[in-house]
Amino acid sequence: MRIGVLTSGGDCPGLNAVIRSVVHRAVADHGDEVIGFHDGWRGLLEGDHRPLDLDAVAGILAAGGTILGSSRVRPEQLRDGVERAREHVAALGLDAVIPIGGEGTLKAARLLSDGGIPIVGVPKTIDNDIAVTDVTFGFDTAVGVATEALDRLKTTAESHQRVLIVEVMGRHTGWIALHSGMAAGAHAIVVPERPFDIDELTAVVGKRFEAGKRFAIVVVAEGAKPREGSMAFETGGTDVYGHERFAGVARQLAVELERRLGKEARPVILGHVQRGGTPTAYDRVLATRFGWHAVEAAHRGDFGMMTALRGTEITLVPLAEAVESLKTVPEDRYGEADAVL
Amino acid sequence: MRIGVLTSGGDCPGLNAVIRSVVHRAVADHGDEVIGFHDGWRGLLEGDHRPLDLDAVAGILAAGGTILGSSRVRPEQLRDGVERAREHVAALGLDAVIPIGGEGTLKAARLLSDGGIPIVGVPKTIDNDIAVTDVTFGFDTAVGVATEALDRLKTTAESHQRVLIVEVMGRHTGWIALHSGMAAGAHAIVVPERPFDIDELTAVVGKRFEAGKRFAIVVVAEGAKPREGSMAFETGGTDVYGHERFAGVARQLAVELERRLGKEARPVILGHVQRGGTPTAYDRVLATRFGWHAVEAAHRGDFGMMTALRGTEITLVPLAEAVESLKTVPEDRYGEADAVL
Amino acid sequence: MRIGVLTSGGDCPGLNAVIRSVVHRAVADHGDEVIGFHDGWRGLLEGDHRPLDLDAVAGILAAGGTILGSSRVRPEQLRDGVERAREHVAALGLDAVIPIGGEGTLKAARLLSDGGIPIVGVPKTIDNDIAVTDVTFGFDTAVGVATEALDRLKTTAESHQRVLIVEVMGRHTGWIALHSGMAAGAHAIVVPERPFDIDELTAVVGKRFEAGKRFAIVVVAEGAKPREGSMAFETGGTDVYGHERFAGVARQLAVELERRLGKEARPVILGHVQRGGTPTAYDRVLATRFGWHAVEAAHRGDFGMMTALRGTEITLVPLAEAVESLKTVPEDRYGEADAVL
Amino acid sequence: MRIGVLTSGGDCPGLNAVIRSVVHRAVADHGDEVIGFHDGWRGLLEGDHRPLDLDAVAGILAAGGTILGSSRVRPEQLRDGVERAREHVAALGLDAVIPIGGEGTLKAARLLSDGGIPIVGVPKTIDNDIAVTDVTFGFDTAVGVATEALDRLKTTAESHQRVLIVEVMGRHTGWIALHSGMAAGAHAIVVPERPFDIDELTAVVGKRFEAGKRFAIVVVAEGAKPREGSMAFETGGTDVYGHERFAGVARQLAVELERRLGKEARPVILGHVQRGGTPTAYDRVLATRFGWHAVEAAHRGDFGMMTALRGTEITLVPLAEAVESLKTVPEDRYGEADAVL
Repeated sequence: MRIGVLTSGGDCPGLNAVIRSVVHRAVADHGDEVIGFHDGWRGLLEGDHRPLDLDAVAGILAAGGTILGSSRVRPEQLRDGVERAREHVAALGLDAVIPIGGEGTLKAARLLSDGGIPIVGVPKTIDNDIAVTDVTFGFDTAVGVATEALDRLKTTAESHQRVLIVEVMGRHTGWIALHSGMAAGAHAIVVPERPFDIDELTAVVGKRFEAGKRFAIVVVAEGAKPREGSMAFETGGTDVYGHERFAGVARQLAVELERRLGKEARPVILGHVQRGGTPTAYDRVLATRFGWHAVEAAHRGDFGMMTALRGTEITLVPLAEAVESLKTVPEDRYGEADAVL
Repeated sequence: MRIGVLTSGGDCPGLNAVIRSVVHRAVADHGDEVIGFHDGWRGLLEGDHRPLDLDAVAGILAAGGTILGSSRVRPEQLRDGVERAREHVAALGLDAVIPIGGEGTLKAARLLSDGGIPIVGVPKTIDNDIAVTDVTFGFDTAVGVATEALDRLKTTAESHQRVLIVEVMGRHTGWIALHSGMAAGAHAIVVPERPFDIDELTAVVGKRFEAGKRFAIVVVAEGAKPREGSMAFETGGTDVYGHERFAGVARQLAVELERRLGKEARPVILGHVQRGGTPTAYDRVLATRFGWHAVEAAHRGDFGMMTALRGTEITLVPLAEAVESLKTVPEDRYGEADAVL
Repeated sequence: MRIGVLTSGGDCPGLNAVIRSVVHRAVADHGDEVIGFHDGWRGLLEGDHRPLDLDAVAGILAAGGTILGSSRVRPEQLRDGVERAREHVAALGLDAVIPIGGEGTLKAARLLSDGGIPIVGVPKTIDNDIAVTDVTFGFDTAVGVATEALDRLKTTAESHQRVLIVEVMGRHTGWIALHSGMAAGAHAIVVPERPFDIDELTAVVGKRFEAGKRFAIVVVAEGAKPREGSMAFETGGTDVYGHERFAGVARQLAVELERRLGKEARPVILGHVQRGGTPTAYDRVLATRFGWHAVEAAHRGDFGMMTALRGTEITLVPLAEAVESLKTVPEDRYGEADAVL
Repeated sequence: MRIGVLTSGGDCPGLNAVIRSVVHRAVADHGDEVIGFHDGWRGLLEGDHRPLDLDAVAGILAAGGTILGSSRVRPEQLRDGVERAREHVAALGLDAVIPIGGEGTLKAARLLSDGGIPIVGVPKTIDNDIAVTDVTFGFDTAVGVATEALDRLKTTAESHQRVLIVEVMGRHTGWIALHSGMAAGAHAIVVPERPFDIDELTAVVGKRFEAGKRFAIVVVAEGAKPREGSMAFETGGTDVYGHERFAGVARQLAVELERRLGKEARPVILGHVQRGGTPTAYDRVLATRFGWHAVEAAHRGDFGMMTALRGTEITLVPLAEAVESLKTVPEDRYGEADAVL
């Protein structure tokens, strides 16, 4: 069998672990050949690739980033490129293509799959917002990095009597905010799923000070927005790929809370450190299992599917289902956290 | 409502997070009173306890160990103590007791539950060997610590041309060995579920050297044993609690592999560092959810039950089921790991 | 002997280790009494304090922040407060006061010392900019946190073809930028000591891309500024304490580099995580030694002095010298780093 | 100029950082050629080497181990090999050889230097026992790893009422034991410089229990031995290189303390994790500076010397001085630690 693999979209700890696992399973166990496309879909559209043997993936299991590179492609580019992709797949004699990527990548994967290309997708997003899998790799690392930062910030806030507004990743969903906020014992957690009321947030933080506490930690997902009419809010607009731009919610909240509470409030924006570097053991195991099962699916001819974690098992779900809806934080998880606005 | 909580058995990262969560949910949200028994079952049998309010659990979320202390009690002590426990529960006016512990604790919990004490158990074991829950808190931290150590050892083994036999925890099951071995890319993983054949292990390691590699990492669970007749093996016997004593499998393997391969082989025994210290974000979230749901179960009157993770949901399972069998590593996980003997 | 201790200024990993060490040495070894003033100089000016015995400092060695709290006081407040401070010191029967703090604190310490109060200062700054000591505690932790972040960011930048401008602390000196930049192999390091030339920085980064590299990491100290006339630059002004406000140099550099290079450039501002949380082993040892020697100095009557590290030895230097000049990065260190503009 | 570099002796975090720094400074700045000998002195004696250009050292700054490999050579092998080494150096047209290694390596370096080979040594030992330099790289990482383990073990010991005897590296000197013990707040520190009295150690630990404490942490250097007549003690003998073999002092102490105190005492042997894996920022900076200055020394013709840290400066000291005596822990450092027996 000949298999092509590519990584697409934003960085995510575990990408290299998937690539390595695909090569190990395919080459060492099945005697397959594997090639890697450079820079995501661009490599497939332009036929830019290189062979991947066991030596090519030696020592990459714990490495952040992706040895294949990645790039972002606008949806319309891919729509127009299905024919070209099909030609490259045929010319290279590929029996399967394994794209590793997030929502956009999986939508593209479905497009190519519908266009007749034999595809097994591997979901990737630190945001954990893909509906048909319990978890995606990268999420645990992102939560871990955010929690470690929150642990550090907590002692500073406490000793120096501050409100810290810590912005974590999550454009559309609050998973990283929820988990890191719970793990670090944040006093308020603000998620995109629930537009916040600035009066309520002020009250939560204010009550702590009234009770004699001297600090507060607010975790806010980058995509969080105020309830309409709640406070003036500057959005960031959208970029050329149609993605919302950074609105700076933490900065805006810090200004507003300082004004309302008369307490020093400071924003901390964790940024890209959440999506880079060596993956946690959890993410390495999940990524490795995804890669292994993607190869197995290809060998069984299970195309148009995506690997997914359900409980402790790796299963396959149709790509069509994978991108139907985002996995948002369900209501009952707010209750457990006891801090979500 | 009045709730008693206790922690029993070996140390496990996340114990304090459960205690804190029980107190937060019970005291802050339900207006309950909570008391903590000292040193596990001993505290309950002797009525040794203290009140736990919000201040008592401030700042313990990320702390290793247990603020309540723990101790080991021999099964027969507990059997004889049901009556005494019932008296203390009555005298203290407790409506629920939440014991947090491993297999032995849950067996004891069932005994007390059958004896009429209103119990909601919370499972705890770094070994991840409790059958009715997908995962237990503490396991992720143990795997993380072991993986970090393996990452460090790998570069040493490689530069200095060694076989390292790294012994991780796991008396009866190979979960920690499997996950840390997968996460670190170990070349062989030896688990208690499958008695190993020393000839096979020698061959696996030997083949690496024949192929020009200069090192090998073998991960072995402390409870692993050779297949009968495979090699001379000294067992550690059993201690006063009926637990098997440390056999030193890594040390014995190192001697044997060095003799057979003519390569320097060294044992590394990770030991107690795997079960102490601050929990990972994953374990803090899971522990917090277990505590929260244990209180909810108590309020609903769901006694004789234990909290469990199934997929992404926290559920309750009867204590009777919880201790019926160990959760061993299933066959298909060996295949994925590609390194288990 | 009766000793008062206080912590003043911004947060710094190791403050608690100093406090603990002072108490251990004074109480356990000398039989002294120790009190701690709350919130830095404010506590001394208002006589707000509490006793510190061995139990009060149990378990704080590795904890971030300061159990005594801190606050910022404007210079003129202290100038007017010498008399009041003297009265409190007399009323409390103190034989020595040990203030732990940065440049501002040491200036204040000198003022009080000149005013007749028996003072032994302990220098504290993550910026490492106090001239008469080789190193200050907190610096190693800050560099460690920044380096860990840079390690993570590097793989992201590489896989995703980006220029990342990473802003680290350092208002007046580039020590953190220099050390974290060297430790992480940054491609350019921008420090406050040398106003940068944007053309030169553009050329350095541009050359990497011309040579076929796909990313660049620029580390910039928060206090860095362009050479006059080099580029438009918005300063942050000064706050009520006379400190310069955050200018957002990384943000401004990212915009400018993206415009000039036509490559995606992103700012990452590490912020307060650099000054919070558990100290490294290095900082715990240094902080512990400083505390120990401060007590010894007090017992010898060496007042008006400050502890300092010279080579491997702890020595004392006059407070007068301590605040004469900042310790800036010397020229020859730029050469070694091979990346400083 | 043509420069040869080699790494010799046990693993040590920072070796790759030195190699990279030598190549960067020599190749990129001076236009030199650099070759690397494989497996330490063996490579030089057998002429086994490869060219090292900038690409060869890309991405190794933070990597543990050594890309050149290492090996141990018996002193007599080297003595007989001076002539052969001189021939290879001449044949390869080398103007300088930079060996990176510990005490044994530096002794060998001196031998070769006396034999006319132009040598600039770089000292390497996690044990920090080379007399003429304030610190060696690798030490900070080893102390950091040990301290992190001690932090984890402390909570376990406390919750579970145990005496833990933690064995850290240090055959002849107690630097790692001293610094990690101070950093983690160990209750007793046992170093090779001072043969211990088991009665005294028992008393120190016993007093804690009498005072109501429930645990104790004893840090012991692997090379520690009892005072003559103090207790029965099994030594490990010596290996083929004349090095002392592992005596298992922690294991022997645990048995003895448990017997004497009637408290559960457990040994934990940290082992090789202390000398592997990614170096701390501190060690990366020091290693980078050593490499840079070694190249500068070669260009100045300062041969027969070794790089050293004195205060904040890198200097050169004659190889002859470097190996005259071990740097043991001085008496006054015991006082500061307040826990050394």
